[in-house]
Amino acid sequence: MTERPLVSIIIGSRSDLELAKKAEEVLNEFCIPYELKILSAHRNQKELIEYLEESKNYVKVYIAIAGLAAHLPGFIASRVEQPVIGVPRDVKLMGLDALLSIVQMPSGVPVATVGIDNAKNGAYLAIRILKIAGFKTCK
Amino acid sequence: MTERPLVSIIIGSRSDLELAKKAEEVLNEFCIPYELKILSAHRNQKELIEYLEESKNYVKVYIAIAGLAAHLPGFIASRVEQPVIGVPRDVKLMGLDALLSIVQMPSGVPVATVGIDNAKNGAYLAIRILKIAGFKTCK
Amino acid sequence: MTERPLVSIIIGSRSDLELAKKAEEVLNEFCIPYELKILSAHRNQKELIEYLEESKNYVKVYIAIAGLAAHLPGFIASRVEQPVIGVPRDVKLMGLDALLSIVQMPSGVPVATVGIDNAKNGAYLAIRILKIAGFKTCK
Amino acid sequence: MTERPLVSIIIGSRSDLELAKKAEEVLNEFCIPYELKILSAHRNQKELIEYLEESKNYVKVYIAIAGLAAHLPGFIASRVEQPVIGVPRDVKLMGLDALLSIVQMPSGVPVATVGIDNAKNGAYLAIRILKIAGFKTCK
Amino acid sequence: MTERPLVSIIIGSRSDLELAKKAEEVLNEFCIPYELKILSAHRNQKELIEYLEESKNYVKVYIAIAGLAAHLPGFIASRVEQPVIGVPRDVKLMGLDALLSIVQMPSGVPVATVGIDNAKNGAYLAIRILKIAGFKTCK
Amino acid sequence: MTERPLVSIIIGSRSDLELAKKAEEVLNEFCIPYELKILSAHRNQKELIEYLEESKNYVKVYIAIAGLAAHLPGFIASRVEQPVIGVPRDVKLMGLDALLSIVQMPSGVPVATVGIDNAKNGAYLAIRILKIAGFKTCK
Amino acid sequence: MTERPLVSIIIGSRSDLELAKKAEEVLNEFCIPYELKILSAHRNQKELIEYLEESKNYVKVYIAIAGLAAHLPGFIASRVEQPVIGVPRDVKLMGLDALLSIVQMPSGVPVATVGIDNAKNGAYLAIRILKIAGFKTCK
Amino acid sequence: MTERPLVSIIIGSRSDLELAKKAEEVLNEFCIPYELKILSAHRNQKELIEYLEESKNYVKVYIAIAGLAAHLPGFIASRVEQPVIGVPRDVKLMGLDALLSIVQMPSGVPVATVGIDNAKNGAYLAIRILKIAGFKTCK
Repeated sequence: MTERPLVSIIIGSRSDLELAKKAEEVLNEFCIPYELKILSAHRNQKELIEYLEESKNYVKVYIAIAGLAAHLPGFIASRVEQPVIGVPRDVKLMGLDALLSIVQMPSGVPVATVGIDNAKNGAYLAIRILKIAGFKTCK
Repeated sequence: MTERPLVSIIIGSRSDLELAKKAEEVLNEFCIPYELKILSAHRNQKELIEYLEESKNYVKVYIAIAGLAAHLPGFIASRVEQPVIGVPRDVKLMGLDALLSIVQMPSGVPVATVGIDNAKNGAYLAIRILKIAGFKTCK
Repeated sequence: MTERPLVSIIIGSRSDLELAKKAEEVLNEFCIPYELKILSAHRNQKELIEYLEESKNYVKVYIAIAGLAAHLPGFIASRVEQPVIGVPRDVKLMGLDALLSIVQMPSGVPVATVGIDNAKNGAYLAIRILKIAGFKTCK
Repeated sequence: MTERPLVSIIIGSRSDLELAKKAEEVLNEFCIPYELKILSAHRNQKELIEYLEESKNYVKVYIAIAGLAAHLPGFIASRVEQPVIGVPRDVKLMGLDALLSIVQMPSGVPVATVGIDNAKNGAYLAIRILKIAGFKTCK
Repeated sequence: MTERPLVSIIIGSRSDLELAKKAEEVLNEFCIPYELKILSAHRNQKELIEYLEESKNYVKVYIAIAGLAAHLPGFIASRVEQPVIGVPRDVKLMGLDALLSIVQMPSGVPVATVGIDNAKNGAYLAIRILKIAGFKTCK
Repeated sequence: MTERPLVSIIIGSRSDLELAKKAEEVLNEFCIPYELKILSAHRNQKELIEYLEESKNYVKVYIAIAGLAAHLPGFIASRVEQPVIGVPRDVKLMGLDALLSIVQMPSGVPVATVGIDNAKNGAYLAIRILKIAGFKTCK
Repeated sequence: MTERPLVSIIIGSRSDLELAKKAEEVLNEFCIPYELKILSAHRNQKELIEYLEESKNYVKVYIAIAGLAAHLPGFIASRVEQPVIGVPRDVKLMGLDALLSIVQMPSGVPVATVGIDNAKNGAYLAIRILKIAGFKTCK
Repeated sequence: MTERPLVSIIIGSRSDLELAKKAEEVLNEFCIPYELKILSAHRNQKELIEYLEESKNYVKVYIAIAGLAAHLPGFIASRVEQPVIGVPRDVKLMGLDALLSIVQMPSGVPVATVGIDNAKNGAYLAIRILKIAGFKTCK
């Protein structure tokens, strides 16, 4: 993909890759350029911060997929001004821990949360946002 | 406010007005033109559909606030192509029923869910979306 | 089945078919004429509305089976005057999301909710309703 | 009310009276004749059985309101063939115990469950059932 | 077993048999005479009542195993004066529905509840009760 | 009360006294001699062990009332052979933490659990147990 | 307090001050020098990082108190090598969201979680840790 | 391992061994001497007390792994002054019963709780504590 990515998908560990793929499929189907990063808010915080500093110059929407005490989406939302979409992953407790860790953010730092394991909806939401910003999709 | 509204706040009943006010405060603070509608997906569906048909020509982001079996945000998302933000309201069960009714949408019809009773974050999220679409805010 | 259907079973997607079959078995056992439709409240709303407009002239009871943010039963209940039975399906969260999305309806738009994945009870409840309305069953 | 009651509202203790009143208001508004009984499935089982034996000759729909381990609706459903509507009351645990005790009935003994503390919907559901059975309402 | 049973194990359906066997093993190990009945509070209420009327003349402790909206233990407790032990079975919702349906009984009709699927503890508790009543065990 | 106590009510802290009183009322009503002790499993373990060593020579049933991570009933059950009744108290989380900490005991160490805050049922259950052991009550 | 603080109490907003006071009382009682900071992981991340960089040279244990999607304790644990104690605060959902957001950390980044709103136990745990590290307390 | 153990891992039954192994791996990796004991708070209380009396002279941190009504960590915390780390194990209810039984300890008897089944984090937390106490690790 040679175009500048409009969407950044960030996951905290390789075990989230399968879920990320579902988001990628939707973005590919709509011809949205994106990039995928594996960066944990807890274990690769420095690289994550560096990546956010740079990517926030071209990325329009972030999609963060995370399980357990899922801090990644909120962390991103606290460092960029773009909309951040959070996808809770069911690792334990049917994903309820991840859902609450993502959606119950304090005022001022919103995360646009979608359903548990529903990475597709993460992508579909990103596309809705890109569309009102005037970006073209192929579908 | 004479400008065309960019944001539409929709609530299902007058009892949601107090929560809507918190979203309004944030939008006012950022000088975002908006309009507020009281239209239930169950009791005023016809008016709601008519309003959506018209408003989708100028509204950029919808914010829907609802409690209990909170179908309003999903209903809107199934009828417009814009991003729809859902704010679960705690009417019963600490708002867990509303949270799940809003966030667990089927693939293809995403709702950008924020925290329970957190209408402010609904507004903050709308502002993030408007900003990447190039709209100016006064803050 | 050449008789006019008394019961309409509506499911939101093909993945609900197996559960629908359990309801069908009970209705067949009692010789209740019924019809089955696959119509999502979110993805086929227009067709669903058309079907409801027509079927409400002959259907006596609706059975709607749905998982996740299960809006289908409530949607039907808001558009017809007949009793609507909701069957929550366990797709995620053990079906708790579907149960709450179906049962916690606002006042004025009731859904007669039965147990999670218990489509049989949906059918048994329909039969109880038909019986007090004077319809004959073969059992 | 001199007419034969079409609806029977049964509550397990006097503490449920306030909730019963909400159902009564709706039934009165629609001119549906009803009767109200205070009979616990655990403490007045004999009287309850006697009442059910008699009332099932004229009652068309039962509405049972109960909290905690709410066995009343299921008990009635196991002894009459009419539709039984269960209204879970929030006495403890936000009413979740009552909701699950009412809705999760075994196959063959369905209870038409409505929302927690939502006695109004219990009445509205009864009216829908009466209507398809040909009974007239004044609204 | 030729002795008069001291313990009665009652289950609502054949699907509870496996769990009942765990209670039986413990009772056998302690040489406690018991009998096992399959009688649903909802589907065989008449037979259940007859059995309770008779067995309450010789049974010292009842153990009732049930899943879903588990009314069986409470039903027994409302008809006999002996201690009734309730064992919640995980059929749906990890057994939470059964646990709450059994333990949250109204004042005056207690059920001695043990852990989910823990029929062994049902038997161990029965043995503790029998011991203080002076019955001998072989272990 | 000059008779030897048949029931021992144990609470972990003075804040449980109000709930203990409800159990006492029932026991008094039935003329059951009892004693009340305030002994925490965590903070007064030595005194608790001493008391159990002595009281197990005359007490027939223990009632333990506890909130939060309610270990008291299980602790007693592990040190005496008598039946131990556990009453979960709602201090946090609506008493769900106490309920699960009491009822989910490992096999071999059963606690007869009653409803949340339902100390009355704790006493009623104790009376049922005493009755089959041949103790007289005045009611 | 002129001594170098051994404990650092960090809260995300002024609304957590009351809970922090309970931890302070215990630390004062044991004569443990501490300092209190109000620094949100989401709103003051830069200051928080600066503070952690400096304080990790003298602080032995961190206590972080947070509600909702409580990321503060985990954030600290990802940036310092000292033990971090997390105290979930009940702001919404009885504190379950905070509990899960704090305790369900990914492997490698542990947070020592104590009970909901139980800031005292946060302090008591800190004292246990300081004691095995050889620090003296006055009690 | 010839050195005096710094960490004691205690589990209540052999079924917890697999989880214990995960903690052992981490401790081995960091060259922390430890010992592993299988001692139930309910079934081997006497041996457990004896072991704690002795081991508290050399152990610096206890790690207790337990499922269901997990009283083991709290029991240890009530008998030693060292920090006690509790690891909830998912045996039933996704481990929620164990989590609440461990974390919701009364004030004065803290347990440092880590995530469900996350024995690794139990070990990592022990290492953090040992490090501030000046113990060397090989990593």
